[in-house]
Amino acid sequence: MEPAVLNVRDFSQDHRWLSINTATVRKQWPLDRIINECAQRGITAIAPWRDQVAAVGLDKIARQLRSSGVQLSGYCRGGFFPAPDAAGLAAALDDNRRAIDEALTLGAPCLVLVVGSLPGALTGQPLHKDISRVRNEVRDGIAATLQYARQMGMPLAIEPLHPMQAAERACINTLEQALDLCDQLDPEQTGALGVAVDLYHVWWDPKLAQQIQRAGRQRLLAFHVCDWLTPTRDLLNDRGMMGDGVIQLRQARAWVEAAGYAGFAEVEIFSDHWWAQPGETVLDTCIARHKAVV
Amino acid sequence: MEPAVLNVRDFSQDHRWLSINTATVRKQWPLDRIINECAQRGITAIAPWRDQVAAVGLDKIARQLRSSGVQLSGYCRGGFFPAPDAAGLAAALDDNRRAIDEALTLGAPCLVLVVGSLPGALTGQPLHKDISRVRNEVRDGIAATLQYARQMGMPLAIEPLHPMQAAERACINTLEQALDLCDQLDPEQTGALGVAVDLYHVWWDPKLAQQIQRAGRQRLLAFHVCDWLTPTRDLLNDRGMMGDGVIQLRQARAWVEAAGYAGFAEVEIFSDHWWAQPGETVLDTCIARHKAVV
Repeated sequence: MEPAVLNVRDFSQDHRWLSINTATVRKQWPLDRIINECAQRGITAIAPWRDQVAAVGLDKIARQLRSSGVQLSGYCRGGFFPAPDAAGLAAALDDNRRAIDEALTLGAPCLVLVVGSLPGALTGQPLHKDISRVRNEVRDGIAATLQYARQMGMPLAIEPLHPMQAAERACINTLEQALDLCDQLDPEQTGALGVAVDLYHVWWDPKLAQQIQRAGRQRLLAFHVCDWLTPTRDLLNDRGMMGDGVIQLRQARAWVEAAGYAGFAEVEIFSDHWWAQPGETVLDTCIARHKAVV
Repeated sequence: MEPAVLNVRDFSQDHRWLSINTATVRKQWPLDRIINECAQRGITAIAPWRDQVAAVGLDKIARQLRSSGVQLSGYCRGGFFPAPDAAGLAAALDDNRRAIDEALTLGAPCLVLVVGSLPGALTGQPLHKDISRVRNEVRDGIAATLQYARQMGMPLAIEPLHPMQAAERACINTLEQALDLCDQLDPEQTGALGVAVDLYHVWWDPKLAQQIQRAGRQRLLAFHVCDWLTPTRDLLNDRGMMGDGVIQLRQARAWVEAAGYAGFAEVEIFSDHWWAQPGETVLDTCIARHKAVV
């Protein structure tokens, strides 16, 4: 089903380029246990979430990462800029600065931004419907955050989210839209601002190959994999394990690598099914599928 | 929440521009009853589905439409071109020709195309994952069908479907992609090929206004409304009644009308909630919301 030969790094012999987004086993284990389980399996990178870090303690996690030799492929997450009022916006900008500080403490290569959308929509009570307005607010929020991020040397990775999450979670919904924003806010392509390409969100896009090529090495800060199931039974928590769905993972990896990306393939699976399995099974399956189909 | 004044036709005084896509009350009534219920309420247009027509009888429905004065805003649907094999493709092309014949018998202004995608995906067993391949097959299928449609004088309206339906139902997922295909297959903009703009599928698109303008009068063959709920609980059957969600309906209507569209606003709601209400309630609510928020 995939073209026979694609010009990609060989993942079949080991899993040195595998990273685990720690949401994948968040229901099974706290973060310190996740780090140990990864280290025991030779998984050398993770992308943790702020709440998971906070639950164990930032400094403790930072020490554990150093001692275990596990590095980060990204830190989840900043963003959620649109707010009901000026106080809310100020709080959001503060919070993004704290996320940058934490990312630095943990040695993350980038802070991933889920940019937010209509205020209140996430709790089912959108305060307004003006998606153009929140897109402008997101632009301004990223611009403000980017100033601090540049000072601190922490790259920001805008993650376009699937259009089915446009109302609640992110009003940036295509790679083209994210890259337009990068060009606007960082025209010199300094590396301070780029994108996180999560195939779950963008696999369907007829312009995907073209926009990955456009992004290039300077903008491609993270690469996330999982799979799109048919049928998909839930808009949020029914992602598939790599190989169980219809995304042409290796084709997409060939595209990002041709564009200059040479980092981790980060597995991020929000799934009621996989959260109900033993964490060991999930990690072992991630390793096997990483070698076989990513 | 909407801009105070938009340059649109006044829908507030009557519902002459309301059309009911008959899937909206398909669980309540057969098509002949739907036509009667619409006619009784002064609803002058519908968009029926082929299976609903077949269940009552094509000629009977054609006669009923003539006698009741109810016209069509479109006929649902052709498409589903990608097939497992050459025999399947031939059958799909045959079926599209029959859909055109039926549309002519019913006096439809256009045949709406839901173009299809990965063969087998709709039943949970995709035969392959090559979305580029099915996009090419869709292009060729539309090209072949367009020949017959031109002969018969029946315009084809490509309906871009939401990216969350890209695997199973349609591999054309943005208005830009649909218009690129129109430009390729009908560069002279003859009116034989255009698009159906269903706001449920395209409301999230940052290029929506731009692409509606690009489409223009010759390509804008149908305009569908409903609403996007937060949260959305099902990928297929949780559409909202106009006004209950976050789509800026009047803004979008201003865009299509500025581009030259002067036809019906067709209500198409697939919803387990609304299918469980009395059909009378659904139609009366559609009329009220059409006047108030569309």
